[in-house]
Amino acid sequence: MSKTATGNFFEDFALEQVSVHAAPRTVTAGDQALYTALFGSRFAVQSADPFAEMIGYPKSPVDDLLVFHIVFGKTVPDISLHAVANLGYAECRFLNPVYPGDTLFAESQVIGLKENSSGKTGTVYVRTHGTNQHGETVVTYVRWVMVRKRDETLKTGHDTVPTLITHVDPEALGGACPPISTEAWSNALSGSPHRFDAYVVGERIDHADGMTVEDAEHQLATRLYQNTARVHFNAQQEAKGRFGRRLIYGGHVISLARALSFNGLANAFHVAAINGGRHVAPLFAGGTVYAWSEVLEKAHVPGRSDVGALRLMTRATRDLPCDAFPQNEATPEQPGVVLELDYWVLLPV
Amino acid sequence: MSKTATGNFFEDFALEQVSVHAAPRTVTAGDQALYTALFGSRFAVQSADPFAEMIGYPKSPVDDLLVFHIVFGKTVPDISLHAVANLGYAECRFLNPVYPGDTLFAESQVIGLKENSSGKTGTVYVRTHGTNQHGETVVTYVRWVMVRKRDETLKTGHDTVPTLITHVDPEALGGACPPISTEAWSNALSGSPHRFDAYVVGERIDHADGMTVEDAEHQLATRLYQNTARVHFNAQQEAKGRFGRRLIYGGHVISLARALSFNGLANAFHVAAINGGRHVAPLFAGGTVYAWSEVLEKAHVPGRSDVGALRLMTRATRDLPCDAFPQNEATPEQPGVVLELDYWVLLPV
Amino acid sequence: MSKTATGNFFEDFALEQVSVHAAPRTVTAGDQALYTALFGSRFAVQSADPFAEMIGYPKSPVDDLLVFHIVFGKTVPDISLHAVANLGYAECRFLNPVYPGDTLFAESQVIGLKENSSGKTGTVYVRTHGTNQHGETVVTYVRWVMVRKRDETLKTGHDTVPTLITHVDPEALGGACPPISTEAWSNALSGSPHRFDAYVVGERIDHADGMTVEDAEHQLATRLYQNTARVHFNAQQEAKGRFGRRLIYGGHVISLARALSFNGLANAFHVAAINGGRHVAPLFAGGTVYAWSEVLEKAHVPGRSDVGALRLMTRATRDLPCDAFPQNEATPEQPGVVLELDYWVLLPV
Repeated sequence: MSKTATGNFFEDFALEQVSVHAAPRTVTAGDQALYTALFGSRFAVQSADPFAEMIGYPKSPVDDLLVFHIVFGKTVPDISLHAVANLGYAECRFLNPVYPGDTLFAESQVIGLKENSSGKTGTVYVRTHGTNQHGETVVTYVRWVMVRKRDETLKTGHDTVPTLITHVDPEALGGACPPISTEAWSNALSGSPHRFDAYVVGERIDHADGMTVEDAEHQLATRLYQNTARVHFNAQQEAKGRFGRRLIYGGHVISLARALSFNGLANAFHVAAINGGRHVAPLFAGGTVYAWSEVLEKAHVPGRSDVGALRLMTRATRDLPCDAFPQNEATPEQPGVVLELDYWVLLPV
Repeated sequence: MSKTATGNFFEDFALEQVSVHAAPRTVTAGDQALYTALFGSRFAVQSADPFAEMIGYPKSPVDDLLVFHIVFGKTVPDISLHAVANLGYAECRFLNPVYPGDTLFAESQVIGLKENSSGKTGTVYVRTHGTNQHGETVVTYVRWVMVRKRDETLKTGHDTVPTLITHVDPEALGGACPPISTEAWSNALSGSPHRFDAYVVGERIDHADGMTVEDAEHQLATRLYQNTARVHFNAQQEAKGRFGRRLIYGGHVISLARALSFNGLANAFHVAAINGGRHVAPLFAGGTVYAWSEVLEKAHVPGRSDVGALRLMTRATRDLPCDAFPQNEATPEQPGVVLELDYWVLLPV
Repeated sequence: MSKTATGNFFEDFALEQVSVHAAPRTVTAGDQALYTALFGSRFAVQSADPFAEMIGYPKSPVDDLLVFHIVFGKTVPDISLHAVANLGYAECRFLNPVYPGDTLFAESQVIGLKENSSGKTGTVYVRTHGTNQHGETVVTYVRWVMVRKRDETLKTGHDTVPTLITHVDPEALGGACPPISTEAWSNALSGSPHRFDAYVVGERIDHADGMTVEDAEHQLATRLYQNTARVHFNAQQEAKGRFGRRLIYGGHVISLARALSFNGLANAFHVAAINGGRHVAPLFAGGTVYAWSEVLEKAHVPGRSDVGALRLMTRATRDLPCDAFPQNEATPEQPGVVLELDYWVLLPV
C-alpha cells in the first residue's frame, strides 16, 4: 500500500465522520513576529504586553486570525486537498484567548454532504474545532468546500445541507476576551479616539492604504500555517491550471484586510466571530489589496459593560482603491472586490 | 467625521507640539530572528547569549538598528505620511540596552518648522524619544522631513530651524553598553583580531560583499517595524509615482550596510550614536547593495577603559562594488552611493 | 593591513589545522518559526511541545536540519568563500538534541587536502563539530569542497584524501533522541499510521507535492543561518557568473525535500545521520522542487526497542514530478534530479 497520502475525494466523506487532524502546533513569539512582518498589524493589545496587561489580559494574546489560519491549515490535508473552490465560512467564534506557548490541535466533523448535479463534484460541510493543550476550544467554525469526485460515474446520493445561522448572536461573543478596564485603555497608544459609541450603523470607512503581495510573502504565510494546499505553492503545476499561476490563500486576504482596517478601526482590538466570508474573486502575486468597511450592526454584549460589538462587512479589493466604497466583484482581468467578510469585532466602550 | 486617519500636512504641525505615537511594541526573539534573516547580521554580542553574558551583558541585547527602526516606524503615521523626502537624521543616541521582552514606546516633539519658498512644502524637525516599559529612554534622535501642504495658498510663516550638533560628543556615548570584560572577549568567536587600537583615522575598509534586495524582503522588514509609509508597499500607486515603482525604506539600506560592515568591523559590536545620515539616492528592488567605511575619528569614552569609539562614515552603494571606495551619488539610472551614514561604534580595547 | 577578510584559498589550508568559527548563535523559537515558514515542515515532534513531551522529550527540539544549516553557515567564511563546488558530505551524525535557547558553536579541522591536476583548484576536506553552550557536540560531519588557488603557478603538493565510511553504523545512531514512549505516540496527531515496521527495503515513496522557490525565500533562509557565500546573494555579480543568476544554497533543497517527505514519512521524526549527499545540479529561483525516497536499509538501533532506523535515499528534482521516481540528473536547462541524499531517520516501532 502506498505511503503517500492522496487526500479525500467527495465520495470518501461520510456524514458525522470525525477527523483528528495531524501536526498540533505550539504558537510562539516567533509566529507572532512573522505575522506582524507579513501583514503589518498594529492593534495595541496584540502588539505590546504592557498594553494588554494594563487593560486586564495576562499578556498579549496571539492575533485571532493567526489562530484561525493555523487551525484551518491543519484541516487541509484531510478536507480540501481536492477542493475546487472554498465556498464559505460561517458560525466562526473565538472562545478562548491563545497566548504564545499554547498549542493548537484541530478536529473536524462532516455536517453536510451534497453531490452536485454535474456528478463531478460535491459540497462538503465541516465543523472544525481548534483546541488548546488544556482541551479548551479556542476557535470553532463551519466551512464548506466543493470537492472533486474520484469517480464521476459513482452516484453517492448525498443531499444533506446543514442549517447554518446567518450571524452569531451577540450573547455568544467575547469568550476569548477577558474583562477589560476601559479606564486603563489609552486611546493615544491604541491609535484612535473612536471607541464603541463613536460608530453608527451604516457608517462606511475607507481603510485608505494598499498593500501589494509578493509570491514569497503568501508562500511564507501559508507554510507558517502548515497549510499544504497545492495551488498556493506549485508554480509549475499552476501554470497549466485554471488561472495560469499560483493562487493566494484566501486567508491571506482576510489578514491583509484586517491589518489595513487599523486605519479607521484601531480600537476594534478583537475579532470575536466571523458570520460569513466569501472569496468572490482570486488574488495573485502582484495584486494590490485595499479594503473598506461598513458597520452593519451595533450590539451590547450581554453581561458586559466593558466592550461593545460592531458587526462589520469588510470588503477587500484587488487593484482598486476604496475611497468610493466599491462593491463590484473582481474578475481575473478586472479590478474589484475579492473578499466579503461579515464579522463581529469588540471595542472598548 | 471620518474615522480614517489621513496624516498630518505641514500646516497641521505646531512648534513644541508633542505626539504620543500609537502601537507600543514588545520586541521578542521572533523579531530578532527575522532581523537576522533579513540582513544576515553576525555581530557576536547580538547573536549569542553566552557571548554577551561572558563579557558582561545579562543576555544578548536586541540589535541597535532594529530598536531604531521600530521606534521610527511608530512616528510615520503622525509625522511623515505626507513626506516628500526624508531629509536627514542627527543627534541619535542609544541610551539603554533593549532585551527581548522589552516594550518600545515612542513620542516626538516638533522642534522646528520651516516653510519652503515654493509654498508647496515645509520642513518638519522632530525630536523622537523611544522609551521602554520602565519609562527609560532607549533611543533618541532628531529627524527632518519635507512635508506637503494641504493648502498651498496658505502661508504659515514658519521659519524656525533648530540648531543641531554636527556630531555626538564621545562623553555622551555608551549608555546602552554595560561595562564589558575585554579579557573575556574572544576574537575567535567575534570574528576578528582587530580591536579599537588596530584602527587608524583615515583608514578605509571595503566591506566586500553585495546583497541584492527583493520586494518581499523590504516589505517584510518595513512591516515588521509597523512602518506604514505608503511608498514602500503600494506598487499600483507607485507605478504612477515619481519613480514608477516601490521605494525601499531608507532604514533598510542602513541595516544592510551595517550587516555588510561585519567584514572589516566585526568587533564594532554596538552602534552608540548616529551623527547624521543622508539617503542621497533611492533604492529599488533588484538593486544590489555594497558598502565601505572610513574611520573619521577615534575617541576614548570618558570614564571607560573597556571600550573605545570609532566615528565612521559608511557609504552604501547601489550596483557598485566598493573596492575603489566610490563617493559619487547614484541616480535612479546610474550606480553609485545611496547612503552616507556618520556614526559612532564601540569596540573593545 | 586590510581589515577586510578575504577568505582562504587552497594554499592557505594546512592538514590538521583547526578553525574556530566566528559568531556563535543562540537558536530561538523565532528561528524555528522562520524555518516553518520557509519549508512548511509538519513533523509533530518539532511542531508541538505537548507532543514532544508526551513521548519523552522535555520539549520540542529544534529541527535537525536547522541545526545543521546554522553550524554549516558558520564554516563558510573560513572554508568555502572561494569554493567552486560543494562536492559532498559524509559521516554526519546528530549527537545531542538542541532546544530553543541553546547556543551553537562551530569548529572545523582540515582532514584532507588534494590539489587538482589542473593546478587551479584543490579539494579541502574538513570535519566540523557543532557544539552547544555546555561544550557537548550536537552535530558532526565531514564535508569536502573544491577551492580555488590564489596562485595557480604554486604547487602545494597536497595529496591527502581521508578515508570516509560509506554510511554511519546503526549503533552510532540516536544520540540526539531520548528514549521515547511508543505507546504515547499518537499516529493521528503525527499524521500517519505507518511506523517502522510498515516500511520495507526497496520501497519507493513519491512525496507528491511541489514547492516553487523564490529569491526572497532562499535569501532569507541562508541569511538566517548567517551563511555568507556570495553566490546566493549577489545578483549583479552572478549575472556575470557561471549560471547567470543567483545559485540557491544546496541546504535549501535538503530542507525542502525533508519537509516534502512528510507525505509518506510522517513518522520519520528525526534525522539521525547523513551518510552522504550530492548536489548533482543547481537550483535557481523559479524552480519547483519535488522529491521521492527509496528505503535502502532497515536497522534496529542497538540497545533500543523504542525506535528503528530507515536508511533512505531521497532524491529531489527540479521541475519534475516524482510519481515515476526519476533518477536522471537535471542540467541547468533540463528538469531532473538536483539532490541525492543518503541518510538515516528514526521512527517509532
